[in-house]
Amino acid sequence: MALRLNRRFFLAGSAGAVASAGLIKPGAQAWAQDNALPEYVNFKNADDFIVHSSNTIETKRGVIGANLITPETHLFVRNNISPPDASIVADRDAWEVSFEGVGEPRTITLGELKRLGVTTVASVIQCSGNGRAFFDYEISGTQWQTGAAGCLLWTGVPLRAVVEALGGVAGSPSFVTGTGGETIPAELDVNQVIVKRSVPLEELDNIILAWSVNGNPISLAHGGPLRMIVPGYTGVNNVKYIKTVALTEEESEARIQQSRYRLQPVGEKGSPEFDSVWKMNVKSWITGPLETTTSGKTNIVGVAMGGTTGVSKIEVSIDGGDNWQEAQFIGPDLGRFAWRTFVLPTELDAGSYKLASRVTDSEGKVQPKDPELLNNSGYNHNGWLAHAVDLTVS
Amino acid sequence: MALRLNRRFFLAGSAGAVASAGLIKPGAQAWAQDNALPEYVNFKNADDFIVHSSNTIETKRGVIGANLITPETHLFVRNNISPPDASIVADRDAWEVSFEGVGEPRTITLGELKRLGVTTVASVIQCSGNGRAFFDYEISGTQWQTGAAGCLLWTGVPLRAVVEALGGVAGSPSFVTGTGGETIPAELDVNQVIVKRSVPLEELDNIILAWSVNGNPISLAHGGPLRMIVPGYTGVNNVKYIKTVALTEEESEARIQQSRYRLQPVGEKGSPEFDSVWKMNVKSWITGPLETTTSGKTNIVGVAMGGTTGVSKIEVSIDGGDNWQEAQFIGPDLGRFAWRTFVLPTELDAGSYKLASRVTDSEGKVQPKDPELLNNSGYNHNGWLAHAVDLTVS
Repeated sequence: MALRLNRRFFLAGSAGAVASAGLIKPGAQAWAQDNALPEYVNFKNADDFIVHSSNTIETKRGVIGANLITPETHLFVRNNISPPDASIVADRDAWEVSFEGVGEPRTITLGELKRLGVTTVASVIQCSGNGRAFFDYEISGTQWQTGAAGCLLWTGVPLRAVVEALGGVAGSPSFVTGTGGETIPAELDVNQVIVKRSVPLEELDNIILAWSVNGNPISLAHGGPLRMIVPGYTGVNNVKYIKTVALTEEESEARIQQSRYRLQPVGEKGSPEFDSVWKMNVKSWITGPLETTTSGKTNIVGVAMGGTTGVSKIEVSIDGGDNWQEAQFIGPDLGRFAWRTFVLPTELDAGSYKLASRVTDSEGKVQPKDPELLNNSGYNHNGWLAHAVDLTVS
Repeated sequence: MALRLNRRFFLAGSAGAVASAGLIKPGAQAWAQDNALPEYVNFKNADDFIVHSSNTIETKRGVIGANLITPETHLFVRNNISPPDASIVADRDAWEVSFEGVGEPRTITLGELKRLGVTTVASVIQCSGNGRAFFDYEISGTQWQTGAAGCLLWTGVPLRAVVEALGGVAGSPSFVTGTGGETIPAELDVNQVIVKRSVPLEELDNIILAWSVNGNPISLAHGGPLRMIVPGYTGVNNVKYIKTVALTEEESEARIQQSRYRLQPVGEKGSPEFDSVWKMNVKSWITGPLETTTSGKTNIVGVAMGGTTGVSKIEVSIDGGDNWQEAQFIGPDLGRFAWRTFVLPTELDAGSYKLASRVTDSEGKVQPKDPELLNNSGYNHNGWLAHAVDLTVS
């Protein structure tokens, strides 16, 4: 399954330094990297990342390892526009959020929100375009491989509790629409750039407004002081620096909703007639060993998720999918929006292997060999074959 | 329930700067603190801790909050002797561990151990003496309140997998005995100071040798490069810098096993005739609000654990235990060795309250009002009354 990379990618960002040999091999970690991390993510270790641009920074495949929870220091970064000034996390409790489409619409500080309720949810955050590099046709946009995903414990107030404190749902909305607090330069058309995403109202009981991740305040890079977490939905729906939450009859009028993040067929332009990129799908990938190892006992490890369902079975192949062995999930099950880590303890002789993983969700849906839906923008790639790892054992 | 503090405490460590008013109120966070953090824990924020001494550093009660997982940065520190030189975490995979009491005893590097298997367990790490300050009789030793505990995700190799790789169990051992890699000064009697702890062999299938915590390599302060995790057992049994793991017929001959960490009655000396401090017990405590808050909606939050069983119910009282309301567990259940976080969303008028929590484990055992077992060294305090919080609402 050859992988062609689009022309735009080679001309953009750090492409000058990129060796194409390292790019066209799925799972390769040899991606040349001469970009330092931007200031707002300087708490991360540059060695753990592939810097596509200052707002698109991918976690190297092996960094995830068998880690059930992704430390914020290991989490990928993807901002649609540059984050707000760091001053917004200086006095977190003073951050204000406006609520609309409720009985008593008003603005509430984070300090007050913290008193309305608290819960914790484990949810995968995964960029809609994670795996884009594995589609075998030309697609513009960041060429993510596996590293635009992490699983984290988000703590915040249930949106339902806030809505009830504000007089309940008003009217007959169909969507929860969240707007981010990024600063939009005055010369730009707001709707062209604003992060304003709508998700179906049925998520009202799942959404939380999170101020903490993995036990710490959320960093600016990942949406602090407050992020709207829509468990099981791709990253873009989890609006950072959440400034307005509205229960609306219509979907957001912003470009990010209307034409971007749509699952239009290859060659078509995005528009509301096509499905929005919302729920994540059944998917797994191996995180180690990668590229090379020595013979003998080894653990083939990786991560597996259902998207919005639990997972029931994980299989691993060392011969590119001709034969499969059932692997073991390890560690606690963090719920249907989380991923599970898995291991196949095995023994490998010297030689060449193609390691693949295939997950079955709790409803019996099996991760497909090829991506579930070919689409023009390269979203939701979950095919197991393209995610396979070429391993040389010496 | 008055709390008397022992004379030794007032004479030791940072006591000179300590205001006794702040000490005798359970849950108070006003503990004066003029000690900076020692070098080996300089990745933590001093504001989050009460520094009893350079090797006994307590997490402030409120820092735990509603956090299901304790970041390593928030975890208490308790070393029986000073940690080894930081050079041992410079090349982690080169760390060597000796295995004895198996068919083929030998020394294995951490690099090799990593290939023998991998699993993850969520386990509370709690100092045996956590809550010692709440006993109402004089006890020497660190006056921990609630902050010598955290819940973390440990990743490592199952000890059983290592034992099987080494030819299985040899002879008829009754204990797993772990020895730490601290340097013992030549002039000292080894058995007086060495960290060499034995736990019952029945834990062989639960123990892991962990190299990672919460997705990162374990810091030196918390036992990196390799720590023996005995899930559900008090901190001292989770040997840091593990250098030797032996399946033994007898318990360790070290003082830390023979006479310390024993549950002798008040006034008696520790000796093997008394139970060792091994399994943790059923316990909960409130982590917020503490001391003062303003009237209106608020969330009473805390943590609750069964020790080695799951938990089934959590109740909260705002009147010192006269009346109880059932609170909600929040976030995923990480298994029987973990704690759960809980919340009681409530509304408080101005006034004085005494907040208490009481957990029931999955076998129906209820956290007692007073500590389950009065003992001379002040271990395992799990009484809910002494853990109650005096709260003033204005």
